[in-house]
Parts: sequence; C-alpha cells; structure tokens
Amino acid sequence: MGKTFAEKILAKKAGKESVVPGEIVVVKPDYVMSHDNSAAIYGKFKSIGAERVFNPDQVLIILDHCVPAANEKYATNHKTVREFVETYGVKNFYDINTGVCHQVVIEKGYARPGRLIVGSDSHTVSYGALGAFSCGIGRSEAAAIWATGEIWLKVPYTIKVDFKGKLKEGTTAKDVMLYLIGKIGADGALYKSVEFSGEGVKEFSIADRIVFSNMSVEMGAKNGYFAPDEKTYEYLKSRGISESDYEVILPDEDAEYQEIIEIDLSKVEPQVAKPHTVDNVSPVKDVKGTKIHQALIGTCTNGRIEDIRAAVKVLEGRRVNPKVRLLVFPASMEVYMQALKEGLFEKIIEAGGIVMNPGCGPCLGAHEGVLAPGEVCISTANRNFKGRMGCKEAFIYLASPETVAASAIKGEICTVEDLK
Amino acid sequence: MGKTFAEKILAKKAGKESVVPGEIVVVKPDYVMSHDNSAAIYGKFKSIGAERVFNPDQVLIILDHCVPAANEKYATNHKTVREFVETYGVKNFYDINTGVCHQVVIEKGYARPGRLIVGSDSHTVSYGALGAFSCGIGRSEAAAIWATGEIWLKVPYTIKVDFKGKLKEGTTAKDVMLYLIGKIGADGALYKSVEFSGEGVKEFSIADRIVFSNMSVEMGAKNGYFAPDEKTYEYLKSRGISESDYEVILPDEDAEYQEIIEIDLSKVEPQVAKPHTVDNVSPVKDVKGTKIHQALIGTCTNGRIEDIRAAVKVLEGRRVNPKVRLLVFPASMEVYMQALKEGLFEKIIEAGGIVMNPGCGPCLGAHEGVLAPGEVCISTANRNFKGRMGCKEAFIYLASPETVAASAIKGEICTVEDLK
Repeated sequence: MGKTFAEKILAKKAGKESVVPGEIVVVKPDYVMSHDNSAAIYGKFKSIGAERVFNPDQVLIILDHCVPAANEKYATNHKTVREFVETYGVKNFYDINTGVCHQVVIEKGYARPGRLIVGSDSHTVSYGALGAFSCGIGRSEAAAIWATGEIWLKVPYTIKVDFKGKLKEGTTAKDVMLYLIGKIGADGALYKSVEFSGEGVKEFSIADRIVFSNMSVEMGAKNGYFAPDEKTYEYLKSRGISESDYEVILPDEDAEYQEIIEIDLSKVEPQVAKPHTVDNVSPVKDVKGTKIHQALIGTCTNGRIEDIRAAVKVLEGRRVNPKVRLLVFPASMEVYMQALKEGLFEKIIEAGGIVMNPGCGPCLGAHEGVLAPGEVCISTANRNFKGRMGCKEAFIYLASPETVAASAIKGEICTVEDLK
Repeated sequence: MGKTFAEKILAKKAGKESVVPGEIVVVKPDYVMSHDNSAAIYGKFKSIGAERVFNPDQVLIILDHCVPAANEKYATNHKTVREFVETYGVKNFYDINTGVCHQVVIEKGYARPGRLIVGSDSHTVSYGALGAFSCGIGRSEAAAIWATGEIWLKVPYTIKVDFKGKLKEGTTAKDVMLYLIGKIGADGALYKSVEFSGEGVKEFSIADRIVFSNMSVEMGAKNGYFAPDEKTYEYLKSRGISESDYEVILPDEDAEYQEIIEIDLSKVEPQVAKPHTVDNVSPVKDVKGTKIHQALIGTCTNGRIEDIRAAVKVLEGRRVNPKVRLLVFPASMEVYMQALKEGLFEKIIEAGGIVMNPGCGPCLGAHEGVLAPGEVCISTANRNFKGRMGCKEAFIYLASPETVAASAIKGEICTVEDLK
C-alpha cells in the first residue's frame, strides 16, 4: 500500500522506513517559527530551565502581530525578542519592517518542498502550498524546540481534496476554500493532513495555493499540501532557489486516503463566511445588501501582490462608499514595494482607501482598525470569531479581495458583478 | 498708540472699536475644530443640556489621533463622532483617511488670514502661520461653542520675535524654534500672543512658519502669528483661495509689545530638545553619540512634503541602522499622495524605513510606535514629556527631520554633517 505525503515526509524526518497514521514520531523541524509571541515563548524557555538554544539557526522569528507597537506591552515584548535574538545569536530574525510572518517565511525562501516547519501560530500551515509539511504548535512546544531541537508529532490520517473542472469567471481560490470549509465544517478535517490535488490544481497560482494551505487549519487540518509542480519550481527559481536546494516529496500514486472530497470548480460562485464562524458559509448573493462599515484587504490569507492587483482592478475609477473605511495591508514589505512600483497605491488612495504598513493589522484585533460594537466588516482574512477584530459585538464577513473591494464601493456586501 | 495683531483681530471679532490686553471679549470663532476627542465633547454637549448645534457649519471635525482605531474604545469614539456629525448635519467632517487635523485645516483652506479659529487641541496655534488668530481651548469650551456659537477670550499681551540675519546651511526652522523655546523656557510666553517678524521671516516657507506657529504653545503662547506676505498669498492662491476670500489683519507699525526677542538666525546651529521637557534644549553636538531605538518623522510639526523631502535627501543611498526603527508618517493624505508621486516612499523603504498612514501616529502614545522602557526615540514632534509616546520610562529627543534622518542612519544622535 502506498503512502501519503504526510506519512512519507514524517517517516523521512523521523529517520524511519515508514510510519502509519496515529504513530508518534520524534522529529527535528527545519525551522521553528514564531512572531511577537516569541517574548512569551522566551518566558517559557527560561521557566523550563533552558540555558542555551539547541540550534540558533533553527529559530526563525518575524515581528508582525502588532507592528509598530500599539502599546507599551507590545513594545516591551518586541524589546524582549530583540534581546533574545542578540543573546542567543539567532540570525533568522526580521524586525517590524518586514511583514506578516507566513508571507515572509515563503518570500525569504525558508518554505521549500520537503521541509518540515513548525510555528507558534496556527496559520503556519501556509507553507504546504510549496510542498512543505508545516503546522502550528503551542508556545510551550516552541520553547521546548528552542531548548532541545525536537518535537513529537502524531502522524495524521490524510484527506484528499480533488479539484475538478475550471473556475467560473469571477470566482477565486478564496471562494473555493470558503465553499470547502462550509461543506465539511470547521472540524471537517480535524488533525488530518489535507492534500489538494486533481486536474483543477493546475489552475491555481502559488498565491492561490497559499490561500488553500493557509485556511486548511480553519477546517481543523494539521497541514495542507500541494504537490510541487512546474509552477512551484518556477516560483522558487524566481527567488534564486534551484532544484538542488530542496527535495520534492510526493504522495504515492496508490496512497491510502481516509476520505476523498471532490469539488467541481465550475459550480462554485463567490462565497462569504458569515458571523461568527468560518464554516457559516453561503454564496455572496444570499447576504447581498448587508451594510458594511469597514473593508479589509490583506493578512496572511490574501495580502499578496495578486490580491492587491485584483482589488485595484475593482477599485480603479470608482469611489469607496463614504460610510466605509477601506484598509489595505500588503502582507510584506516586498509586496508593498511591488505594489508601490506598479502604481497601485495611487489608485487605492484615489478611490478613498488607506494603505497601511505591512503586518497583521487589525486581523487579530490588536490595533490598526479595531471595530466598534454593532459595526460590520468584510475582510479577506481567515477568521471571523466573535471578538476577532477586537470587539465582541462586531460582525465579520470573510470573502475574496474582489468581493471585499466591490463591497467597499457599494457600501454593502456584493460581488464585482453587482457593480456593473 | 498702535495695536498688535491680537488686539486688532479680537477687537474686530468682538465688534469693538479697540481692546486692551487683559480685557475679556466675547467672540464667535469662524471655526471650532476638534478630533477624536469630539466624542468626549459630545458627551459634555449633552451633559449641559444642549439640544441643537448653534451653527453646524462652525463645527470642524477631523479624526486623526488614533486612526485606524487601535482598540474598541477609540473605535467607539469614532463611531460616536460619525453619529454626531450625521445627526446634527456637520458637513466639515473628515474621516480617518484624511490626516492630522492641523495639516488638514490648513490644506482644506479653513485657515486663512484674518480668521479666528479655536480648537480642542493645543496645537491649534498652527494656523497663525497664515495670519489667522488660532488657539487651543478645552473640551467643555468646545461643547459650549457647539451649543452657543460663542466663547470668551482674554486679550493677550504680545511678544515680538525679531528674526535677524540668515540661516546657516544645515540649520532649519525647527532648530530655530527649539533654540527660542530653550532660550525663553516653556512658560516664556505664557498666555502671550507671539508675532514672528523681522527681516529673517522672508527666509521661511509656509511649511517653516507652521513649525514656529505650531510650537508657539510649547513656550506657553496663546497664539503664534506671521503677517501674511507674498509667500502667504501665493500659498493660498495655489489652493484656489484668492485675495477676496480673506481679510489681512496686520499689526500697527507702532504697536506696543510687552517684549521684543531678537534672534540672530546666523548663530543658530542644529538643536535638540532633550528628555523630558521641550525647553531642555542644546545643540545636537552636545548629545552626539546618544544611542537611539526609534526615529519618527511626521506629526503636525514636521510631517509636510518639505519635511519628507528633506529626510529623503539624507536617507537616499544610505541604510537605516538595523537597531533603529524609522517610522515616517505623512501629515495628511495629500502629503502622502504627493510623496508617493515623487517616488519618496521607495527611497524611504530602500533605506529600511516604514511609511505609515497619515495621522498622529505614536506622537501622543496612542499606538503605531509606542516605546518600551529604556528606549530612546528621536522625533520631529513637538513634545517629549515623560510618557508622551506611551511609556513613562522612555526617552524622547526632538529635532528637525534632517537630524532625525541622520540619527536613524547612524543609530545615534548626530547631524547630517556628521554623516559625511
């Protein structure tokens, strides 16, 4: 019987011939990633009596969650992190002028096919888009890896998502992912490895694939994987990473899947996740006309150059409704610079939007766009739990950059088609 | 005996032949300006039993202090303000995508020669740069003006600042103003009207004049006035405001001044205000070598296009010290757009800086760059009191954009000259 991607990579990383789902393996991750919470991890690191970092080059820290610091607490955390990286010689450190951690891990070439990356952030699953095995871990686990270099993982069962057909004009990867989450539920892939596959995968750019991998955790998945293909190799090459710099691990043709979910791409229309759960999904048309106060384009889910281009295509020549605040957060300084050079910011501002600094922004409610009670926000982010954007009495809808931009123009939820 | 500017404009606004210092006059300000604190003013307005706004067109509100909202409290304040302007038909309202209130008041043409503008913010004094009489008031006073249209003011005595000579290369308006404040102290002009005059005034651009007027309050002044001249008329004309749209009020030639302070511009070198008071001023060279953690360019004092250009001139082709966070906040969306079009942002980012959204940023410690205990910031702002930037155990130095940019490069306080 063949093996899935998760089984093959975890066997390899554990130094075993083969492993089976449910088995516990001890592995040395290639990287352990953390962000502003590195200060808390450092606290745990000291509390367990650790005196040295096992491998400073395994540690990867990117400050992004509240940058620049919104209050003294965050400022102090950042200061603590800077002291930690200096004390222990951590070179893979990116300060507040870099971007959202997951985007930075991908851009800077840490995420590669065949790598095992864990991170003290649930959206660490994002790197599966490039054929890595990556997953979120807790802060105590991160501290223990800093100290020992190791972690144990339980080998997950695998679900295969089989994309068939072609997307309709006006439908995006985000819509498909929301549709999938709505279909199987927020616990539909609990502790499962998800392999996104099928003919339809070819349709999706690396940016699209990151959306799927990123949101895998929203259906409970341990990781979300795309088999590397020509698009992957091209993307890596464009970043100076050649084929000898990584090892492609593919699932066996006859791998055993616990479940296969077929999605006919041609049947998906623009989707929205309604308050207050990510799996409360419906077509945009079902909530058309819902008044909004804020529109957010950015985050680790949809803050890439492709997303900003898509939003600008909708915004150009139009004006944001005066009752709506449109906030655009490029996911990284690289994305920011690219958008700047392409003249996208002029267009966002001419439309009435605001361009913010790269970082997580208000996605997690830390600052830069917290909502007021009763307010409604439509966002390209990945979570809409009560209080997610800093206010328990606000309402968050999740959608594609195109739908968010269109809704910002109209002042109420709608698709791009509805603007015509 | 002739009259000063303050005496002449207050007599006119009070409908009197003439007034004398110390006299109380009742006036109807042309505008009463407020920002995020409009929510608190609205609370007072209701608490005094007001049921209508006397003149909605007199009310001018610009959201800038914590934009986008850093927490639910600010978000709720913003929401309250939006409800207030809608309920009472306030048309002079600018939402979070506009900029720092004082810059916006000037850009949008509210500030004009001969106008009387009060504002619930101490730096309302800024508009004196264009020949207006403008001063800060309290929130209760602002609420009372909303309700009655009126306020009483005590006619101030007047100090004349006489600029002689020419600035040395490398010295700026900010340096001169810091020098003046250092010379006369934070209470050196307490409740005085200050008239900036003399041959040296011609040297100063409108942007420069705003620096002087803006910081007049840092020496206790009631207002800080520049007699309109060709530069003023040109500036206004460039904004579509012709000479028939305002009335120039000039002090009499033989006006009586309580004090005349002479400043020889040629003797001023780059200055810095040291922690923790604005009048703790010394030449930059006296604190050369002080290590910094953050550098801030922006605010109502020095966030104009001229300031950003000056900073970029220093930053271009250099790299910000990796231990320093350089934050640039254009003072308004208009400044932002201009800087964008001139390609200044690319240069700031290539140097390692971060461009933020227009607004007050961390100047008052609300968000977007709060300091940690023990950290040192050099800033183009106007205040360096303990806790000003959100942390009572941090240290703030005030300087010109050129000095701040140079210090960001070196990682320690220095002048541009020191980089050579």
